[in-house]
Amino acid sequence: MAETKIKTNQIFLITLALTLIPLVHGRYEPTWESIDSRPLPTWYDEAKFGIFIHWGVFSVPSFANEWFWKNWIGFQQQKYIDFMKKNYKPGFKYQDFAPQFQAEMFDPYEWAKLFEDAGAKYVVLTTKHHEGFCNWPTKYSWMWNAGDVGPNRDLVGDLAKAIRNSTDLRFGTYFSHFEWYNPLYNDDLLHLFFTKAYPSQVSLPQLRELVMNYEPDIVWTDGDSGPYWYWKSTEFLAWLYNDSPVKDKVVVNDRWGGTECHHGGYYTCQDHYVPGHLVKHKWENCMTIDKYSWGYRRDAQLEDFENSTSLIHQLVETVSCGGNLLLNIGPTHDGRIMPIFQDRLSDMGKWLKINGQAIYKSKPWRAQQDNMTKNTWYTSQVDEKSTTVYAILLDYPSQTAQNQLIVNLGEPITSPATNVTLVGYPKLLKWSPIGDSGISIIWPDLNFNQVPCKHAWVLRLDGVK
Amino acid sequence: MAETKIKTNQIFLITLALTLIPLVHGRYEPTWESIDSRPLPTWYDEAKFGIFIHWGVFSVPSFANEWFWKNWIGFQQQKYIDFMKKNYKPGFKYQDFAPQFQAEMFDPYEWAKLFEDAGAKYVVLTTKHHEGFCNWPTKYSWMWNAGDVGPNRDLVGDLAKAIRNSTDLRFGTYFSHFEWYNPLYNDDLLHLFFTKAYPSQVSLPQLRELVMNYEPDIVWTDGDSGPYWYWKSTEFLAWLYNDSPVKDKVVVNDRWGGTECHHGGYYTCQDHYVPGHLVKHKWENCMTIDKYSWGYRRDAQLEDFENSTSLIHQLVETVSCGGNLLLNIGPTHDGRIMPIFQDRLSDMGKWLKINGQAIYKSKPWRAQQDNMTKNTWYTSQVDEKSTTVYAILLDYPSQTAQNQLIVNLGEPITSPATNVTLVGYPKLLKWSPIGDSGISIIWPDLNFNQVPCKHAWVLRLDGVK
Amino acid sequence: MAETKIKTNQIFLITLALTLIPLVHGRYEPTWESIDSRPLPTWYDEAKFGIFIHWGVFSVPSFANEWFWKNWIGFQQQKYIDFMKKNYKPGFKYQDFAPQFQAEMFDPYEWAKLFEDAGAKYVVLTTKHHEGFCNWPTKYSWMWNAGDVGPNRDLVGDLAKAIRNSTDLRFGTYFSHFEWYNPLYNDDLLHLFFTKAYPSQVSLPQLRELVMNYEPDIVWTDGDSGPYWYWKSTEFLAWLYNDSPVKDKVVVNDRWGGTECHHGGYYTCQDHYVPGHLVKHKWENCMTIDKYSWGYRRDAQLEDFENSTSLIHQLVETVSCGGNLLLNIGPTHDGRIMPIFQDRLSDMGKWLKINGQAIYKSKPWRAQQDNMTKNTWYTSQVDEKSTTVYAILLDYPSQTAQNQLIVNLGEPITSPATNVTLVGYPKLLKWSPIGDSGISIIWPDLNFNQVPCKHAWVLRLDGVK
Amino acid sequence: MAETKIKTNQIFLITLALTLIPLVHGRYEPTWESIDSRPLPTWYDEAKFGIFIHWGVFSVPSFANEWFWKNWIGFQQQKYIDFMKKNYKPGFKYQDFAPQFQAEMFDPYEWAKLFEDAGAKYVVLTTKHHEGFCNWPTKYSWMWNAGDVGPNRDLVGDLAKAIRNSTDLRFGTYFSHFEWYNPLYNDDLLHLFFTKAYPSQVSLPQLRELVMNYEPDIVWTDGDSGPYWYWKSTEFLAWLYNDSPVKDKVVVNDRWGGTECHHGGYYTCQDHYVPGHLVKHKWENCMTIDKYSWGYRRDAQLEDFENSTSLIHQLVETVSCGGNLLLNIGPTHDGRIMPIFQDRLSDMGKWLKINGQAIYKSKPWRAQQDNMTKNTWYTSQVDEKSTTVYAILLDYPSQTAQNQLIVNLGEPITSPATNVTLVGYPKLLKWSPIGDSGISIIWPDLNFNQVPCKHAWVLRLDGVK
Repeated sequence: MAETKIKTNQIFLITLALTLIPLVHGRYEPTWESIDSRPLPTWYDEAKFGIFIHWGVFSVPSFANEWFWKNWIGFQQQKYIDFMKKNYKPGFKYQDFAPQFQAEMFDPYEWAKLFEDAGAKYVVLTTKHHEGFCNWPTKYSWMWNAGDVGPNRDLVGDLAKAIRNSTDLRFGTYFSHFEWYNPLYNDDLLHLFFTKAYPSQVSLPQLRELVMNYEPDIVWTDGDSGPYWYWKSTEFLAWLYNDSPVKDKVVVNDRWGGTECHHGGYYTCQDHYVPGHLVKHKWENCMTIDKYSWGYRRDAQLEDFENSTSLIHQLVETVSCGGNLLLNIGPTHDGRIMPIFQDRLSDMGKWLKINGQAIYKSKPWRAQQDNMTKNTWYTSQVDEKSTTVYAILLDYPSQTAQNQLIVNLGEPITSPATNVTLVGYPKLLKWSPIGDSGISIIWPDLNFNQVPCKHAWVLRLDGVK
Repeated sequence: MAETKIKTNQIFLITLALTLIPLVHGRYEPTWESIDSRPLPTWYDEAKFGIFIHWGVFSVPSFANEWFWKNWIGFQQQKYIDFMKKNYKPGFKYQDFAPQFQAEMFDPYEWAKLFEDAGAKYVVLTTKHHEGFCNWPTKYSWMWNAGDVGPNRDLVGDLAKAIRNSTDLRFGTYFSHFEWYNPLYNDDLLHLFFTKAYPSQVSLPQLRELVMNYEPDIVWTDGDSGPYWYWKSTEFLAWLYNDSPVKDKVVVNDRWGGTECHHGGYYTCQDHYVPGHLVKHKWENCMTIDKYSWGYRRDAQLEDFENSTSLIHQLVETVSCGGNLLLNIGPTHDGRIMPIFQDRLSDMGKWLKINGQAIYKSKPWRAQQDNMTKNTWYTSQVDEKSTTVYAILLDYPSQTAQNQLIVNLGEPITSPATNVTLVGYPKLLKWSPIGDSGISIIWPDLNFNQVPCKHAWVLRLDGVK
Repeated sequence: MAETKIKTNQIFLITLALTLIPLVHGRYEPTWESIDSRPLPTWYDEAKFGIFIHWGVFSVPSFANEWFWKNWIGFQQQKYIDFMKKNYKPGFKYQDFAPQFQAEMFDPYEWAKLFEDAGAKYVVLTTKHHEGFCNWPTKYSWMWNAGDVGPNRDLVGDLAKAIRNSTDLRFGTYFSHFEWYNPLYNDDLLHLFFTKAYPSQVSLPQLRELVMNYEPDIVWTDGDSGPYWYWKSTEFLAWLYNDSPVKDKVVVNDRWGGTECHHGGYYTCQDHYVPGHLVKHKWENCMTIDKYSWGYRRDAQLEDFENSTSLIHQLVETVSCGGNLLLNIGPTHDGRIMPIFQDRLSDMGKWLKINGQAIYKSKPWRAQQDNMTKNTWYTSQVDEKSTTVYAILLDYPSQTAQNQLIVNLGEPITSPATNVTLVGYPKLLKWSPIGDSGISIIWPDLNFNQVPCKHAWVLRLDGVK
Repeated sequence: MAETKIKTNQIFLITLALTLIPLVHGRYEPTWESIDSRPLPTWYDEAKFGIFIHWGVFSVPSFANEWFWKNWIGFQQQKYIDFMKKNYKPGFKYQDFAPQFQAEMFDPYEWAKLFEDAGAKYVVLTTKHHEGFCNWPTKYSWMWNAGDVGPNRDLVGDLAKAIRNSTDLRFGTYFSHFEWYNPLYNDDLLHLFFTKAYPSQVSLPQLRELVMNYEPDIVWTDGDSGPYWYWKSTEFLAWLYNDSPVKDKVVVNDRWGGTECHHGGYYTCQDHYVPGHLVKHKWENCMTIDKYSWGYRRDAQLEDFENSTSLIHQLVETVSCGGNLLLNIGPTHDGRIMPIFQDRLSDMGKWLKINGQAIYKSKPWRAQQDNMTKNTWYTSQVDEKSTTVYAILLDYPSQTAQNQLIVNLGEPITSPATNVTLVGYPKLLKWSPIGDSGISIIWPDLNFNQVPCKHAWVLRLDGVK
């Protein structure tokens, strides 16, 4: 009875708060102060693991990396010049790759299944990279989008639909504000951004079109070369938060014009951001399986791909420190995800299927790393009554005592009610406290084939502080 | 002495007038009344004969005609559908033709020479047809212009330069206001032209860019599907006449938004405009050697091309009635002008070399056609002192009297001082008056090989009224 | 009665002769003596005018001429190297042109009509040029023929069928014995032709296949780089004359392995062969409308094409001296015959329609050129009773006497019964003899429009010797 | 002393035999009896593990499998028809894929390194598959080989050179006797093989050319649709064994015209041949990592690839039963070996690096599988003095006795001198005999990270019978 009462009270309070917020807040103003005051929708923090997809015209040469155009024409890097000279007729231009971007083998439902099986909870697709090519049939970049040239298909819409129809994953849209070679942008740049033809005619109309057409859960912007007032970022975000169809669910990142790590939604700070310690503001580590490229490149060798162990370790560390992992793959121009990527995603899925309780919806614990056993990261699950702590061991235990493997953890403070289990193993583990703080756990005697998983092992500690 | 005085006076008066015009007129206002009040620069009326060039992405399929895209996709004409189905892979789009528009054999100096030898005095090139593809590297149609896709070259600039560097011809720019498939235009259309994204962002910036970059002698617009206030035509023309670098020399036509045959510069009224009688307002007959297409088409057979006789007859009739002839050819996608076009142009050049005095700088005479000998058209050369009348016979004389060929003309009123010659033949012809009005001329006894030209024969009448 | 008798006798004698020939002759032996003894089937001499067609993979680059491959790779001519470097990707090979040889607009019935309207009586198509590409789906050159690569169609068969189904023209097959780059040929060459892999495995099987499949009226061979005993020419010809399905009608030329102008059927001696005097052995002048190429080339300018006058003059001179004219055109890779070729052929057809009686089935006269009026060539029609002589004037008459144009011919010996007409003009002409030999003809008083034709004019002389 | 004597004697006897063989034998006769009498060069049996490479024009569509042409055109399979209809223009032929076979990223030294690191000892490349396309620039298939079309490169020669220059691997050539669509073959077939144009002109000249140019260690023939007397197999093999430059080292297989599993060199019997028991005649198991295709196919998903465990198990079973494993990969048309293949090969290499002593140069033992512990296979190393037996466990031990893992093997007969080790683990293992035959081995107490390898574990038994 008492419990029910509390619940009713809670519901009342939440309802009250929700009613008051708009009264207090009113609407979001186009100022960073106001924009930044919006609470992050909770689904994002709970999701922990997303898939990033870099797909575009760069997937056609699929050589070196997705900055192909800029590296070749802008920076005149020799290896790109040589590649073009050797393989294409004189005068072949980057834009001539676009008709070959056919996506003829693209099956978005297969992709959706793959991401779901990998244990991801959201997907972020490049709707437009710095090359400016739009993966949806936009009105605002005629003849340089997937409806007009190349796939002849709404890649963004087709993937969004498949994801939503067949999985519970969220769908996000990566969008580059600027475009390397858009003459309107370069003209504005020349005028020190005092003219604004490009954002008025191109980037803002495109962003709104994206939001209206695909109702993304994440608006992941990038390429913010220019001040936020040039991009009209606060105005856009105020509209997004106040009036857009996704105002309640949408999450944005922090790349809105010199605002990285300072304004917007969650922080990405920089690519491959891995702070190594708890960050208060919600953040995301975007990284890529191919160590040297976000887009698919044919010249990648086996050793250029992160192995599954390393990927799982990154996920663990990231979640432990309060971040989400956005793991990138690069599909081919014909719409496939190479088996080597499938292999890595499959391994992550297998691990998460067993150990997901330590990841999804978890909260950072008071400590991130253990102080006695290195490469051991903490997460926790908190509910009203209790907290479960997870110690995730990146190294298989090797310390022995009395012919038994033991794991000594310095952070947890035990009580007699403390219970310890190895996730994926059915029995309770024996343990003993170490002084005031710390616990010594006897690892079960597991044959090679009995170890519940590879890559990292999760100790669940109930009743510790 | 007296003569010189008059001349001096005249010069003074002209100078005065030219000084006063701006004072009286001030500047042109963006109203049709003001725009239409501008006198047509004299070079245009004197030129009489120009070359029209239709060149664009349609030159790649070069099938049926230059409306390929619209006929195929818009009107779903079966012959286009069949052509595509038979010859291209499924999903091949019109825009996929663009990369094949390579112009790799385009030599603008060769073209210029050809046009000059044809006796033309100006050239008008499609800088953008209804397909929207710009033949110059415009800022305002990224990825759908000759700098970004296809030729990788400034076709407009290169031709303009060659024409100006190597000939005395004038250079004009054909420009389609609207574009069949530009999403901004179609959006404006949907909003009944109350929105104006397309003219603001596309067509007007392009027009100004054209004028500033290439300083055209003619701005030949077309595709004015929309009211002139949508196109801001009067505003553009006021700028063109007041402030543009071509304000003194530029000539425009009459297709500015429902204004054909009513406003603008010279009148084109409709394609293949041949009124058959004198038109007071300066006009132009644009027509094409290939009877069924403006753009090059591979399926044209010999009988589809106008023969040289017919072309010269059109020129004569057009000039007689006060018009200019703008004769069209369609180059190939690789930049060549087919020999059959060269053949026709060469024949015109040969005829004009002999008979040009009856055409260039001529004025319509008081009569256009003779009333006794049919298919005989008049032109005249007028100077301060006298008028020379040219009777141009489209049929070789066949009437005989006393074993001699004679030509009876009903319009000229002779005097004893009247002199008659056959242009290209050295001797004076014998003649006698016919009543009050009319002259009977004895045709010289010319062997087959002595006839000065083919196609049409010019009688020069000095001292007639 | 007497007449009929003679005819019956004649028929009897002819029949007897035809019966005896095989008895005397037996079969043709594989020796030149025997081969050369075969009478030329009469249709060929009567035909006078044929169309030569050069069509192959060289029609794809259609640049410079049909020796593209050899000039580029074999002779390393700079202009070919530059052309390839500029327009194709590195490593692009001649054979890579073949898939673009699509013939997609090829309508053999249109071609047949065009040739018939030109007045031609036979057609010779390149079934295989020195490049080795076969225009029919041969078994003996897998992957380098029109069935396997490119058109995916039997070009030879389709043209043969159209010609035979819709016209009375004869169909001939041009065939190159050798192939520039066939490794088997080059191997034999290296062995000084003592090995014979290439003729055994390639050229002879192909020749027989051609004969069996298409039953050509002419076997026009070329590319006989090698001795006739290497090519087994006499053996092939013996088979062709004795046992092939075309043994009665077939005509061959003289290029069988160092035998030009010496052995085989009619003589071609060399390309553009114009001896200028009567040649006893039947011969053929093969020449081409494009002065500089047999194959289509895009870089041909108007002035590179023979004009109609010059072509008709060549025909007249050739026929007068006992030859046939084989006039060449080069179709495009997509199967079209350019309008400029159509124009020339059309002019020839118009001339022949009027003047054909002086050409078809004619025999050389005792004199070829007149000795008083230059550029005047003779032909004759002979039947049992009489001979009609044709004096063909390449120049329009310009000599006058008593205000009348006259033509003085030195060769004809007149009699009172002599009749003179201008072909195409209805009335008899007045004439008078000049001494013992010669005739002075009064040219009719023709207005410009009354002259029956252009280019050349035919005087028909009946009752002269 | 005695021992040494025997050795000397043995050497003498072997030398004697080798001297006598040619005397007795003289030369190999073109009969199966004689051909089959040739001893297999020893290197082959010692090598155990080779890499098979299927590369050809089928690598361009890279769809479904390497029988693309036959399945599409020959068998009219719907999925191929649909694939072509959807993705290619009408009339696109299989041979049109050839120019796209560019191999532009092919680095044979990288391949060689990859194969060496995989632990393979030989490589067999498709020099010509049933499509007939030759991967070397042969004289005997003009225009359908890698020198004339596509790569413009000697793929066979380049790989052979790289393998020999940078590794100790042997190089073999796969060669298809017949070709699906060669018109000469199909003609012979129609004549029930009584005509032999195809083997005389194509296949035999090609085979000899291959042998003379590349001196292969293995001549691996296939596609022997036709009797051996049609292929002249015994004549070819007699030449190969008697007179060719590879007569001493060359190894051949058994596909010479209805001779599978009966004549030739080693037996392949059928693809994926895994007898499961000892086979006396040397044999080879050719199988492929992609379960459903030998050639690369883009539609392969992760689950279609054999995993590393399964591949290693196949190797173990094959070697145990006296076979070699020839493991296939399919490179892409641009010359890459996909990372997923690299991953599998890398795993094999890691396993072989540790456990190679049980594989290379091993001999089958008297037993192949153990009779107590299933999935345990035996190999042995034999020298003059002793035999080492290897028991290879495909399953990690799970049987326990007294808290210790044990492995009971039923076949080995122990002696007091018996020593047992786990390959990759430094210490001797404890063991005890089981009755007359059998041994019970105590598995070392290995932590998860201490297990020397994955996939399969090798127990080395010295001093057992």
